[in-house]
Amino acid sequence: MDDHVPKNIGYAATDAKTPLAPFPFDRREVGAEDVRIDIKFCGICHSDIHQARDEWGNALATNYPCMPGHEIAGIVADVGDKVTTFAVGDRVGVGCMIYWGSDDQRGGTDEQYQNPPAVFTYNSPDAETGEVTFGGYSDEIVVNQHFVLNIPDSIPLEKAAPLLCAGVTTWSPLKHWNIGPGSVVAVAGIGGLGHLAVQLAKALGATVTALTTTEEKTDEILALGADEVVVMSNEDAVKAHAATFDLVLSTIPTAFDMNPYLALVKHDGAFVTVGMLEPSEPIDFALVTLMRITLAGSAIGSIAETQEVLDFCAANGIASDIELVAADQINAAFEKVIANDARFRYVIDNSTLPAAV
Amino acid sequence: MDDHVPKNIGYAATDAKTPLAPFPFDRREVGAEDVRIDIKFCGICHSDIHQARDEWGNALATNYPCMPGHEIAGIVADVGDKVTTFAVGDRVGVGCMIYWGSDDQRGGTDEQYQNPPAVFTYNSPDAETGEVTFGGYSDEIVVNQHFVLNIPDSIPLEKAAPLLCAGVTTWSPLKHWNIGPGSVVAVAGIGGLGHLAVQLAKALGATVTALTTTEEKTDEILALGADEVVVMSNEDAVKAHAATFDLVLSTIPTAFDMNPYLALVKHDGAFVTVGMLEPSEPIDFALVTLMRITLAGSAIGSIAETQEVLDFCAANGIASDIELVAADQINAAFEKVIANDARFRYVIDNSTLPAAV
Repeated sequence: MDDHVPKNIGYAATDAKTPLAPFPFDRREVGAEDVRIDIKFCGICHSDIHQARDEWGNALATNYPCMPGHEIAGIVADVGDKVTTFAVGDRVGVGCMIYWGSDDQRGGTDEQYQNPPAVFTYNSPDAETGEVTFGGYSDEIVVNQHFVLNIPDSIPLEKAAPLLCAGVTTWSPLKHWNIGPGSVVAVAGIGGLGHLAVQLAKALGATVTALTTTEEKTDEILALGADEVVVMSNEDAVKAHAATFDLVLSTIPTAFDMNPYLALVKHDGAFVTVGMLEPSEPIDFALVTLMRITLAGSAIGSIAETQEVLDFCAANGIASDIELVAADQINAAFEKVIANDARFRYVIDNSTLPAAV
Repeated sequence: MDDHVPKNIGYAATDAKTPLAPFPFDRREVGAEDVRIDIKFCGICHSDIHQARDEWGNALATNYPCMPGHEIAGIVADVGDKVTTFAVGDRVGVGCMIYWGSDDQRGGTDEQYQNPPAVFTYNSPDAETGEVTFGGYSDEIVVNQHFVLNIPDSIPLEKAAPLLCAGVTTWSPLKHWNIGPGSVVAVAGIGGLGHLAVQLAKALGATVTALTTTEEKTDEILALGADEVVVMSNEDAVKAHAATFDLVLSTIPTAFDMNPYLALVKHDGAFVTVGMLEPSEPIDFALVTLMRITLAGSAIGSIAETQEVLDFCAANGIASDIELVAADQINAAFEKVIANDARFRYVIDNSTLPAAV
């Protein structure tokens, strides 16, 4: 009988229907280019819920056990022989990617769009261990140094965590579509991603309108710095903004009717949706609305963009509005995210994980 | 009893189910800024069929009687007092637009995207006459001088006609998406528009792959100058071109599965579809395929772009491959277009219209 005692502890789902529960496991050994991180905080991203519940279907089927978490902030605990850029004690973050997808890709940019893409922080096959990768709902993680980010001293670790996914996922399209002074931007869906997108677009110099389906969020959204809030059920307000935005950035995490949003984009503008919608829902839209406007998707952001958004947030005093939760509240927090109750990001205090054996 | 005898003759559909037939009518008087054109030739565009048969539904419902035709080439027969840029006898063309949509728009650019847009050549309300506009399947037309194009001497009128819609509709997105030397372009659907798009993209310096569902067109398409022809039913050939094109320009005039085409677009490239698809067919596509590629629509082109494509074609020896048809063959030609038999554009010889009374 195997009397091995796992050294690590995390929270994982064993199937799509069962709540996450404590899950002992072993992190891989620290390789020459690896950094081992003592995880202090981990944000709860809507993707974590989609993945834990296998809601993406074949496109990104879940490999169980599923240990989510890709908004990781912590302290370097160990480094491999060839690690040059990090030392024990550094304040660091990890986002959605942890290793190169292949040796051929090493040193490339736009790691998430490479073919093969970088290895994702959870639910990816891990060539090294032969298992699936486990994310940040855990005590430690081992990451290739290229994929480790510096967290500026001015950002508390728990407020930095959501920048690693929610932050860069909205930053990347704002930069790619050249948002800056004079730009007129709408952010659709003001949750974990949207509340950062509003702040980022504003700090980039844009005029920012928040599009929400939750009227009760209005005051909180204005407090984030939005110039205006449009409640999408208010047909007159929606109509008044027809064809007025250079960019409508949608952070809505579930399938939805895009047509009212497409109608808000101005000539030669773009509607960009981030993250993964459930592909099982067909996206039906009126093609005529796309005459010289573009519809595009955007997936997370590169490692360079992730460092960029961390530094930009430090320089501009931007951070995530968070609520800390203990590990045994993860399942309850999932329900609140789905119910649209988060203001605006739940972050796990990883010190509340049960002790590893 | 009204004993007025109409002065003009055209071919029109009186409802969605009845073939086009001779239709007497009166052109409006030549206003101060108008040009009256003796129509020599008019191309048959797939849009003519969609409109005559009311296939676009509410988005562009047909007002009967419907007299199509917006690929018009002819000779100036009369000019108004304030017309400065045309004289009787000039070789001219008319495309999809004939008057300003409102006085406010006068002098603007991108006339087709204005709000209100320019008055379309057929099936638009005509504020002047209180009737619907009648297109180029007719003996004469009266057009505001801004919307009249010069046809270069080196292009025969009958070969120039298709450039007024098919030509500019493909030219506009090629220019807008910056196609030039080094660009890698695919043209999907090699008919009236596609056969011009292949030639235009090639003359702009791009490498051009033609995507067709009609294998028998292969030799003819290579003769147009395409570097390669991919038959979309050949799965291996399609797979070999995955994520390789800067621009996939679709001229397919009916609703279709976009997913195989989206998969051909490379990172930061675009899939652009021109013209109007029947909106009654939902366009279902996998959103994941849109990660940092853009999907866009493009509607015809501006008047400036129309003159530009005429001049570019003259300079580069490009013209439409046409087959002349007599007026009484219009309905038969419609059927051949639908059956994908055109090589590549039917053009009406308007001298075969019955005599006006």
